[in-house]
Amino acid sequence: MNAGRPRAFDEAAVVERAMDLFWLKGYEATGLTELLEQMGISRQSLYDTFGNKHGLLLHVIEHYRQTQLSKALALLERDGSGIDNVKAVVQFFEKLALDKRCRGCLVANTLVELGGKDEEVSAILRDILELLQSSLQSALEEAQRKGELAKSKSPAKIAHALTNASIGLAVTGKLDMDPEAIHDIYTGTLSMLD
Amino acid sequence: MNAGRPRAFDEAAVVERAMDLFWLKGYEATGLTELLEQMGISRQSLYDTFGNKHGLLLHVIEHYRQTQLSKALALLERDGSGIDNVKAVVQFFEKLALDKRCRGCLVANTLVELGGKDEEVSAILRDILELLQSSLQSALEEAQRKGELAKSKSPAKIAHALTNASIGLAVTGKLDMDPEAIHDIYTGTLSMLD
Repeated sequence: MNAGRPRAFDEAAVVERAMDLFWLKGYEATGLTELLEQMGISRQSLYDTFGNKHGLLLHVIEHYRQTQLSKALALLERDGSGIDNVKAVVQFFEKLALDKRCRGCLVANTLVELGGKDEEVSAILRDILELLQSSLQSALEEAQRKGELAKSKSPAKIAHALTNASIGLAVTGKLDMDPEAIHDIYTGTLSMLD
Repeated sequence: MNAGRPRAFDEAAVVERAMDLFWLKGYEATGLTELLEQMGISRQSLYDTFGNKHGLLLHVIEHYRQTQLSKALALLERDGSGIDNVKAVVQFFEKLALDKRCRGCLVANTLVELGGKDEEVSAILRDILELLQSSLQSALEEAQRKGELAKSKSPAKIAHALTNASIGLAVTGKLDMDPEAIHDIYTGTLSMLD
């Protein structure tokens, strides 16, 4: 691991390990000592590379966006039915809600923990949600052009409501709820498209 | 305040002050010293009355249910249109999302913080969400009987989806989002009823 020698480690791998811990335990509840142990780097390396624990969190959120949320967004880029792609995104969040580790979604967790307290983090989280919202909206507009979504529906409003439902599913995932109840959320939410 | 003499204070008022602090800051992030200061009681009184900080949290959640969520449930008990009552509940959560203090909803916040870690608290939160879900479902069933909701709709699934959307709105409230975007969530979500 070459602790103490900055960048003499695989930065993405180290950020991934920090992400796992923040995701499971939350930001404040993760102590610096266990963080360094999990990351396998020295305190000095953390400071040299990320500035401090808060700087590390910004890297972690970016890593989460690139490795996790990008999967949801990629679903919208597929050819074929825009509506099916939109449904696949909601299903992606349904899977988060079924996660037996009850970790929820890192963005939703961080939003609850730091939203309203930490403007830098809030701005990044707002950006991420806006990206999800606008991507869903584009897919719904395309579906509307193809006649898959009724002309009477508002792609913007439904995209906002689906983004909100995704956050709800991510948070609900913390409760280890009955899978049938979670699937009812999925089905009921998608009735917006009918 | 008669600190040190158990029950020589207004328990509901003291729990209300603890609720305000947990709601704003979260459970773990609230230190015992500031908690006692805000509550205006001694450490011994807290132990005598609530057992410990965790016991206090259980009282706080119960107080929140009785003073806050009961307002949402009361909306469903009103005579008249079941659909209008259901819309009023979603509007109740829209107002939480517009709260300038960005506190969100105590239940959603606690769910993210302790869900999956604290089984006693998780069970209470699950109960609260099930109560909201079943109350919404009854109102939707009644609306369906009156012909206000299409026979093709599933009151159970929509009630699950609306409960989930309410959690989403509560969490979104942490981001100080644009009121128009929040109102789009409200409108899009209610399109499940169309």
